[in-house]
Formats: sequence, structure tokens, C-alpha cells
Amino acid sequence: MAINASIVGATGYTGQELIDILLNHPNVRLTGLYSTTDEPKPFGFLVPRFAKRTELICKKFNSSEVIAKSDVVFLALPHTQAMAAVPGLLKASKFVIDLSADYRLRDLKTYEKHYNLKHLDKANIAKAVYGLPELYREKIKNAKLIANPGCYPTCAILALAPFLAASSVELDSLIIDAKSGTSGAGKKAVQESLFSEVDEDFRAYKVNTHQHIPEIEQELSKLSGEKIGVTFVPHLLPLKRGILETIYLKTNKKLTTEDALALYRKFYKNEPFVRIKEDGFPSIKDVNHTNFCDIGIKVFGKDIIIIAAIDNLLKGASGQAVQNLNIMMDYPETSGLL
Amino acid sequence: MAINASIVGATGYTGQELIDILLNHPNVRLTGLYSTTDEPKPFGFLVPRFAKRTELICKKFNSSEVIAKSDVVFLALPHTQAMAAVPGLLKASKFVIDLSADYRLRDLKTYEKHYNLKHLDKANIAKAVYGLPELYREKIKNAKLIANPGCYPTCAILALAPFLAASSVELDSLIIDAKSGTSGAGKKAVQESLFSEVDEDFRAYKVNTHQHIPEIEQELSKLSGEKIGVTFVPHLLPLKRGILETIYLKTNKKLTTEDALALYRKFYKNEPFVRIKEDGFPSIKDVNHTNFCDIGIKVFGKDIIIIAAIDNLLKGASGQAVQNLNIMMDYPETSGLL
Amino acid sequence: MAINASIVGATGYTGQELIDILLNHPNVRLTGLYSTTDEPKPFGFLVPRFAKRTELICKKFNSSEVIAKSDVVFLALPHTQAMAAVPGLLKASKFVIDLSADYRLRDLKTYEKHYNLKHLDKANIAKAVYGLPELYREKIKNAKLIANPGCYPTCAILALAPFLAASSVELDSLIIDAKSGTSGAGKKAVQESLFSEVDEDFRAYKVNTHQHIPEIEQELSKLSGEKIGVTFVPHLLPLKRGILETIYLKTNKKLTTEDALALYRKFYKNEPFVRIKEDGFPSIKDVNHTNFCDIGIKVFGKDIIIIAAIDNLLKGASGQAVQNLNIMMDYPETSGLL
Amino acid sequence: MAINASIVGATGYTGQELIDILLNHPNVRLTGLYSTTDEPKPFGFLVPRFAKRTELICKKFNSSEVIAKSDVVFLALPHTQAMAAVPGLLKASKFVIDLSADYRLRDLKTYEKHYNLKHLDKANIAKAVYGLPELYREKIKNAKLIANPGCYPTCAILALAPFLAASSVELDSLIIDAKSGTSGAGKKAVQESLFSEVDEDFRAYKVNTHQHIPEIEQELSKLSGEKIGVTFVPHLLPLKRGILETIYLKTNKKLTTEDALALYRKFYKNEPFVRIKEDGFPSIKDVNHTNFCDIGIKVFGKDIIIIAAIDNLLKGASGQAVQNLNIMMDYPETSGLL
Repeated sequence: MAINASIVGATGYTGQELIDILLNHPNVRLTGLYSTTDEPKPFGFLVPRFAKRTELICKKFNSSEVIAKSDVVFLALPHTQAMAAVPGLLKASKFVIDLSADYRLRDLKTYEKHYNLKHLDKANIAKAVYGLPELYREKIKNAKLIANPGCYPTCAILALAPFLAASSVELDSLIIDAKSGTSGAGKKAVQESLFSEVDEDFRAYKVNTHQHIPEIEQELSKLSGEKIGVTFVPHLLPLKRGILETIYLKTNKKLTTEDALALYRKFYKNEPFVRIKEDGFPSIKDVNHTNFCDIGIKVFGKDIIIIAAIDNLLKGASGQAVQNLNIMMDYPETSGLL
Repeated sequence: MAINASIVGATGYTGQELIDILLNHPNVRLTGLYSTTDEPKPFGFLVPRFAKRTELICKKFNSSEVIAKSDVVFLALPHTQAMAAVPGLLKASKFVIDLSADYRLRDLKTYEKHYNLKHLDKANIAKAVYGLPELYREKIKNAKLIANPGCYPTCAILALAPFLAASSVELDSLIIDAKSGTSGAGKKAVQESLFSEVDEDFRAYKVNTHQHIPEIEQELSKLSGEKIGVTFVPHLLPLKRGILETIYLKTNKKLTTEDALALYRKFYKNEPFVRIKEDGFPSIKDVNHTNFCDIGIKVFGKDIIIIAAIDNLLKGASGQAVQNLNIMMDYPETSGLL
Repeated sequence: MAINASIVGATGYTGQELIDILLNHPNVRLTGLYSTTDEPKPFGFLVPRFAKRTELICKKFNSSEVIAKSDVVFLALPHTQAMAAVPGLLKASKFVIDLSADYRLRDLKTYEKHYNLKHLDKANIAKAVYGLPELYREKIKNAKLIANPGCYPTCAILALAPFLAASSVELDSLIIDAKSGTSGAGKKAVQESLFSEVDEDFRAYKVNTHQHIPEIEQELSKLSGEKIGVTFVPHLLPLKRGILETIYLKTNKKLTTEDALALYRKFYKNEPFVRIKEDGFPSIKDVNHTNFCDIGIKVFGKDIIIIAAIDNLLKGASGQAVQNLNIMMDYPETSGLL
Repeated sequence: MAINASIVGATGYTGQELIDILLNHPNVRLTGLYSTTDEPKPFGFLVPRFAKRTELICKKFNSSEVIAKSDVVFLALPHTQAMAAVPGLLKASKFVIDLSADYRLRDLKTYEKHYNLKHLDKANIAKAVYGLPELYREKIKNAKLIANPGCYPTCAILALAPFLAASSVELDSLIIDAKSGTSGAGKKAVQESLFSEVDEDFRAYKVNTHQHIPEIEQELSKLSGEKIGVTFVPHLLPLKRGILETIYLKTNKKLTTEDALALYRKFYKNEPFVRIKEDGFPSIKDVNHTNFCDIGIKVFGKDIIIIAAIDNLLKGASGQAVQNLNIMMDYPETSGLL
């Protein structure tokens, strides 16, 4: 039996990606698409690549209509807009998968500092489950509200989890040099995102101050049982989609590359969407247009280098959102994703 | 003796390109840089790649200061803003080189239709010289106001001039399939110019309605002595700079490729910035970062294919502007440009 | 019931695209992958993005093994290699879908001139069906051997078919200005295909001499009933996938844009993979990663401009190959393709 | 008075860049261009963007001709080919600027291990001066043979020199996360360098094993007086030119960002081609097509982040080579380079 799903924020990059997946999902019937459009318009008119693929009309978000039409609602909204919509949807007993940052951070103060505003829905933060299936699958099964992880955090946490869980690393040594394609910044028209500015350029931004840092630190701290701080430098790649993170850390144990690989293989043994490289390191093209996170590791004495890659729009956003849906609804976890 | 030059619109792409050229021009002293900045700031702070290359402070445009500091003024402003500045500068006996479209069209109605506004300075249109040196060198020598040609028109007119002057083509057969890099659109922050939208895409725009069409038709008509209409389809390339135009026409004569090449070689015999390919066709990389226009021609029976390429920021804008300056001031025509 | 399918030439760009599709095709079981590899290797090792998605081992092509394992064989081989493999496969009663040019041209001399070699399998040319479903669906139903169309021809023929079938155009006026991404050239390591050479460049190649010209002319001539020649200039875009063709022609009738659109809508009324733009023109991003051909048309007096776009690896190769399979096997035509 | 200069390896990317510079250098007369071409050909025919800019004929390398025609010889050859040419040129009292790695490493064994061959000219290694003007200006003044630094090392050494000279960092903490455009790999036609492979991709390569590591370590060790090892991970960017290195280290002192900046400003006070950012970090577009190295620094407690950027073809190769020439010949150091 199919579930009825709506997407709020359908014309954005993650919204479009959700539609791409859900139109082919055997257990989902897409029933509503919402955006900031003033008048209802065929979605295939707003985004021509969907013409002839869906007859759905895209409308302005309307809470009661969404509630009437949907069992599950994907919120692909800018940060801070999701928390205005969530309480009503939960009250109406809808499943909510929120792709924004609004319910990811347990510590409200950190949220309010990094996103520079008051949280409007403190009550539901505690109910939200951080939707990283590799760490929280059991909780996701019973969740009503999923805080879908950020793209950089998904890649960083998956790359580091086995070592942190095994207490094999010096905790003050974590350096994450992250590189992302431009779709991570969304569709906002700002000069620094113009093709003429980004093409043939490469630069760091928000050096060690990015809003994803507390999300990474929160999850790594939980894994290790100690308070962890990371050095995190994101960079903008002149390409559309994909994240690659090169991670440097020091081990406090005698460890070979083979030991490290064995640890990772065991940790992710049953995971459908994590691939440990037998040898070498992943590249962005290995994971783009897939829901996989690929991880390569090499040990050089006390120094460990981990490289992990994901598609920021899939495992880093919409793919992971559907993976969470599959777990919540007890569908095969890979439904619509392979 | 060096001339004092100012640039109004210095932070835009053509403004920056002018600075690049003029900082190395043996006969020019750059004395003023102006933009929309509210407070004066070192230009190297506004555009970091110029740090340590110039000490000039960029200021808000101020007519009397510009007049006091400059012998020649380059206007690298958006269309319609130039004509507000020109009368005052001419009155003060400054040489003006206007990179906008404001003084290119002889027919005011066409201008007002295509740019959708009233012209503010009809009086000076007749005084302006269309700054295409290959056609108007003698007039440029005595000009006070240069209407620097558009990028697409420069490429199209140079590619077609010899045939039209020789009356060798069927006038109703002219088709110009034009492709341009993104810098032609300037720095305006609009969604359709975002990297995420332009990268890996290619599309036509303003199909047969582009505002450069009347400029092309005006000059081709003058060359041929008959009223000429062209079919013109511009496309947006996922690259920063460069224009390539593939031009299709039919000849009314018996003509070989060698005849055509001989005609072109003769027409452009003494031109420092036009190169006729001996064989084959040019590519954008042959001309980028140069002031050259490269042209290749091949005849297939009655059908002629011409391909021409320029750097839209140089021969299509700032390079040509300096070439005009050189001619006006009787400097070597290639000064600062080779 | 599923059919067993093999792919010969699996590691090339069209081979990989076939695997992507067939792994999710409800009626196909992928049973064999073949390439030039010397030793058998897991396909996911050769092309890491397929790791964990298929357990298939990629082997050197071996005719008897392919015959034993497959009901249908996709040949994604370089031109001239397919015709060595086809006779044996047909003899063994396999269905063959050949993505090369080997069986597309009815006129052997033209083939031998353009591909510069002797054809090895003249006997089967007449049996081959040109696999453009929009024109030959009925023949494809009964075909044993499909000559899957070239990428440029697919786009050009679909863009022109309705006009030619309706005898609405002047036949000597057809100009096709074609632009393609780099995957069309395959994986051959040649200097002119290096990133450093192609990036930020744009150029024409094989101007009016490309090997796809006779294929386009053959099919357009059939449609119109008269011998047709086209002017065809292909260009190389700095992007990976996608073809856009801007087509210029002259009508011999009184025709409005609305008339033209009505003609096209009617001609393609029941086609699942052709979309006629209601207004404006398509861009490459509308069709990339889809099997659609999008077409826009505008009439300017006697001049008609048609712009059509496809993904060269899908509607221009592997997607169309699967569409042909679906028709041959009487599966829903869109199986695996939407 | 002008010096006569020849370039061996003129058609490669660094060779072309040398020509671009030297054609405009006030003190240099370009007298010879050499490559692997079999027959002599006009250079503007081999590389069309130089047509009409130089009349020079490109020939096969011929030692006695080069000697007859040149006062200084630039060797822009693949590694290992330079050392075959150098002894003869030095014997004939020519100045030699070698852009390859052949004379950079003092330790022959390291060279032979990393480049996997026997060195042919041990005698001249000791005479070579490592051509990094910011560290070796005095030696360069008297040099006959310059070992022009590698691109990655230039950027890394300039970024780290002030800290290492001041003994302000923990020496086992140096991590260099380097990203380079594709021109660094030269023009060799290999599959992994194809546009279709590199575009929209990003990957690490030679992780912690790159041949530039010993060069970096040699110079950093000299600066600090202790044997230094670095962790070095190079990555390939989908862009043509430019290197950006993100460097992580730990300080052993109490240090603020302002302290660090002051140290760097002082160290590079008189350097014409090093720019310390007052605030923030450089991007590749700030330095491309310039000979500058831009450096930004920020201190976070014990952790320091340095980001430096150069154009790999200029400050990382040909620009630095000309800077060395200027110093050797006592020309203004910025001649031809601003």
C-alpha cells in the first residue's frame, strides 16, 4: 500500500531531487508540491525537466491542504521556515521529514547563535530524531519527526564514526578539509554565486566558523563520550554537486591501514549505503547521482588520512530523507534509491 | 607624454579589463576609478587581484572630479547610464569612450524600442563615431565621442564585412548562430546566471530578438548599400569569456574557398587585430585574453560557412576601447594590446 | 518474465549508462558484462560507482558465452567492431541492439567512405531496423537487429520530421548548427579531449563533413520523398552530456508559430519521449539524465527556427536502445526510462 | 640592452606562458623556440593564439643552434630530459633556467627514488640555485643554473616560511591540503585527464606520496634548522590553472591572528610578489594570470590555518622563472610580470 507524500519547497534543488526519487518509489504516491509560487502552476511548467513526468500542480504552501492530502511531509525549506510549519503537521499526526537545520541541534543556544534567531518550536526539538540511519536506525523506526542531517555533517560523521566509537584517535587532532559543489548553497541569487564568479575559481569560506560545525561536534561527542571540537574548513568547488572531505587525525594506537579498514568494514558491515574502498580513495564521481557514502583510509605512522565522498543532494539531503522514510515505514531501506 | 585616463564603472568585468590594460599602457596614466561604492576604498581592496598593482582609490562617480583629473574618460556603465554622463564630459572637452549601447544606433526609435526608454542626449548621437577601427579608422582619428561596438556585433560585422562590401552574397540568407561566455551578462545577481544553473547547461536566449540585432543590421546595411535583415540566435556557453559565431550565408557568385580567403586577406591586409585562418576555423581559446578577431571560411557550392571568434571582454569591449584610444591619440594602434 | 541481457562494451560511457538503466528495469536481468579487460574483474572494481550495485564480473568478450547467457545483446562498441560480432549473434537467434554506426546506412558506399573501411556484414544491413521509435515503431516490433541511431541524427530527425513529412519547407535551406558535450567522443585518450584543452573553450569540428551527415540525409530524404542535403556544423561544448541543435530553415507556406506548433503536437501526439514546448525553447538541462527530446519552434515570416535538445547518452544512445528493447519485447515503452 | 633568450619545450603549457611573458619583456629578445616537432613550423601555426604575435619558427631542439642564438635558455621540458641538455649549455657559458625537477633536490637518492631513474648530471646539482627569490635572492644574483621550484612547493614554502624561520610551530603538525588545476599535469594524453573524466569531479591523488614532498621538506627543514616531515595531500580541481593550499599547523606559542599577520608582513615586507591578506583568505581568482602569491592566516587558540594561492603556471612556473631571470640579469624584478 502506498503512502501519500507532499513536498514543501518543491522547486529548490533538494525539492526537485525528492521528486525525482519519489516519482519512481514503489511505495509512495506523490500528492502535493508546494513552493512560494503565487498562483498554482503545473510543476512541469515551473521546472521543464519534469514536464510529462508529473501532472501535479505546484501551489503556495497551505497547511490544511497539506494535512488533508499527505501521510508524510518533506520540508525542503530554508532554515528557520521549517519550525513554523512543523508543530501543525505533528499535531495532525503527520510524519515529518525536515531537511533544514531546525531540529538537528540539541543545544538551543548553539542553534540560536549560529542561525541568529529565536527558535519557535522548542517543544518538538526533543522529539526529533537525528536522521542518520547508520547511527540511529532503531530510533528512526519510531520517529514522527526526522531532523535530516546536514550535508557536510553526514559525510564527516560517517567518515569518523568507527574510529571515535573505538576510541582510537587523539581527540584534539581532528581536521576536516571539506569541499562542496555549488548546489549546497541553493538557488539564492547572490553575486558571489554567479557562474562568472565561481567558474575557474576555488576558495575557502566560513573558515572554522561554518554553522555545520556544532552539528558535527554534537554527533562526534556522542560517539566518543567526550566533548569534541573539530577544525573545519569548507571550500567551494566549481562543480554542481558532490562533497569530498579530506580528514586528518592522529591515532593513539599502533594501527596499520589494514587494521583501520577492518574496523570500518565491520562497523558498516550491514549498511546498504556505505562503501569502504578496498584500496585507495573515492572521488566525487563515484558517488554522484547515488545515495552512497564512499570512504577510503590510509595510515602513515601516527597520522591517518580519511577521504569520504557523498552526493550532497542525495546522501547529503534528499536521498537520506527517503532512506529515513523507508526505515520509518518499514519499506526496504533501498526502495527508490538504487 | 602620457594622457590621464579615468574609468567610470571600474569594478565591473569590462572596467577591470580596462584597468588590466591601462596599467601597462606606455602612454596612459590611470588617474581615476569610479563605481557605485558609497565610501572611497582602495581598488585593490574591492577587487583583490589588483592589490599591490595600483594604489588608486575607487570612489563614487563625481562629474567635476572626473573632469578635473582626466583627459579621456572610459564609461563602462550599464546601458542608459552613460548618456546621463556624456554631455557634461564633452562640454568640458574630454575625450569620451562609451562602452555602452547608448550612442551606437543612429535610429533613435530603434534604440528606444530595444532598450525600452527615452534617449536623454539626442544631440550627441550624430557626433558619436562607431568605434570599429577596421571600418571607421579615419573617423575615429578625429572623434571626441566613441560609441564602442557591442561584442556580438564586433564579431559578426568583422566576419561579414568583406563579403558584403564585395556584394558577393544573397542578402536574405544571413544567419548568425552566436555563442557567448557568461561575462557578457555582467555581474548582476539573477537566478538564471547562477553557477548551479549555467554549469553543464547550454541554451539559446532572446532568439532573434536580441538588442544587438539592429546594431548588426545598421552596419551591414551601410556596408552593402542595401537594407539588410539578419537571423540572429545567441546562446549562453558554460564558460567565462569568449564569443564564437557560426555564420551561414549563400553566395550569388561562383566562388571557391580560396577566392573567399583571398578576398578576406586583402580586405584585412593591414589590420593588426584581424587574423584570417589559412585553413580551418578558429576556436575561442585562440583569441581569449587577446584583442584579435580570428576568422575562418569555407565554401560548399552556394553555401558559405564563416566562423569568427573574439574575446568578448577585449576585442568585444575593453581591448577595442583602448584600440580606439590609440587611434584617437595617434599612439601605435597596438599599444598596450599585444 | 524477465529477459536475459548482456552488454558488450560495458565500461564505455554508453555501456555504463545501459547498466544504470537495466539494473532498474523491471523486465530485464543483466547477465553479462564484457569489455577489453584481459582478466575478469568485478565490474564495481573497474567502475567504482557501480560497487555494491552489481555483483557481475566483467570479462573479455566471448561470443559463445554471450550466446549462452543472453536473450538480447547490446553492442556498445566502437564503430566497425560491432559488425564482426553481429552475424554470430543473429545466427544464434539472439536479439541484437547495436549502438554503433555499422548498420545504420543503407548505402554501403557512403558507409565505407565515411568510416574509411570495408563493411564485413553486408548481408545483415537490409535486415537491420533503424531504431528511431517515433518513425519506425512498427518495424521495431518485429526486428531482430536494431541499428540504434546516432546522437546528432536522433535530435535532428526528430526536430525536422513533422515539417518534412508535411512538405512545408524549402528543401535546400536546411541548416543544422549542432552542439554536443564531450561524452559523445567516448573515452579515447587524445590530446584535444584533455580537460586543459576543452575547458573554457568552444569550437566547431568536422565542419560540414561529419560522419552523421549521411545518416541525417538518409532519414530526411525518406521522410520527404526527395533527396535532401543538409548543412551540418557540429561544435564541442565544455560540458559532459547533452546535445542542443539550432536548426534554420525556410518555409514555402504561409505559416504562423501556432500552426507549426500544432503540426508538431499532432505528429508527436502519442509519443512518450517527445515534448513540444508550448512557448520558448528547450535547454540542455531540461533533458539531461532523461530520455526526452524537447523541441521548440518559432516562425519569423519565411524563416523558421527550431531548437531541439536530448541527452546524447540517453535518447541519443542507451536510453533509446532500451526504448527499442521495450518495443521489441512488447514491454511498456517507458519501462526503466522514466 | 636586450638579452637573447630561447625556450626549449615551447609548445607545452609552461612554454607558452613563457612566450606570453617574454614577448612583452622590455629586456628580452626571444630568439629561439624548440619542441619535439619534426619539421620546423611557424610557432603561430602550431599554437594559433600566437599567430601574428611572433614570426619565430619552432624547431626540433638542437644544442649547437640554441647555444649560438641564446644568452639564456629556459628549459620547459619533462622531468629527466632537462639534465641531458644542461651540461652542454653550461659549458658554453649560457645561463640556464630549468623548470623541471632535475636540479631541485640536493639529495640524489631522494630524486632517484621519486623520479625512478638515475640522475645523469650529478656534477651540476651543487651548482644549481633553488630559484625561490623570497628565500634565495642573493644566490640567484650570481647563479648560472636555476632550479626553478615546483608549483606546490612554491605555494607551501612561501605560506610556511615566516613561521618556520621564527620557530613558532610544532614541527610534527604540518598538514598541507593542496588543490591544483589541471594544467599542472601538462599535455599528456591519458584517460584520467580527459574532460569527460575531470569535469564535475574532484579527487585526491598520490596521497602523501607526491614527488613534491621531498622538495617541500628539504626547504622547510633548511628554514627551521630541523628535519621536517609534512603530510601532503594533493587534489585535482576541475579548472585549468591555479593552486590553493589549505595548511593546518599547531603553534607552540601564545599567538593571535594579528601577531601572525605582523610576522608575515615583516618577513615579506619588500617582496614584490607576495601579498598578505589584511583580513580573510585568498581565492584562486585573486592570483590567476598574475605572478603573486596571496596568503591569509587565522589563529584559533593553538590551531593555525593558513591559506595560500598562486597561479601554477606563473608564480608556480614561468612567472617565477622570469622573476629569476630578472634577478640574475639585474633587471627590475617585476619586468614583464606586472
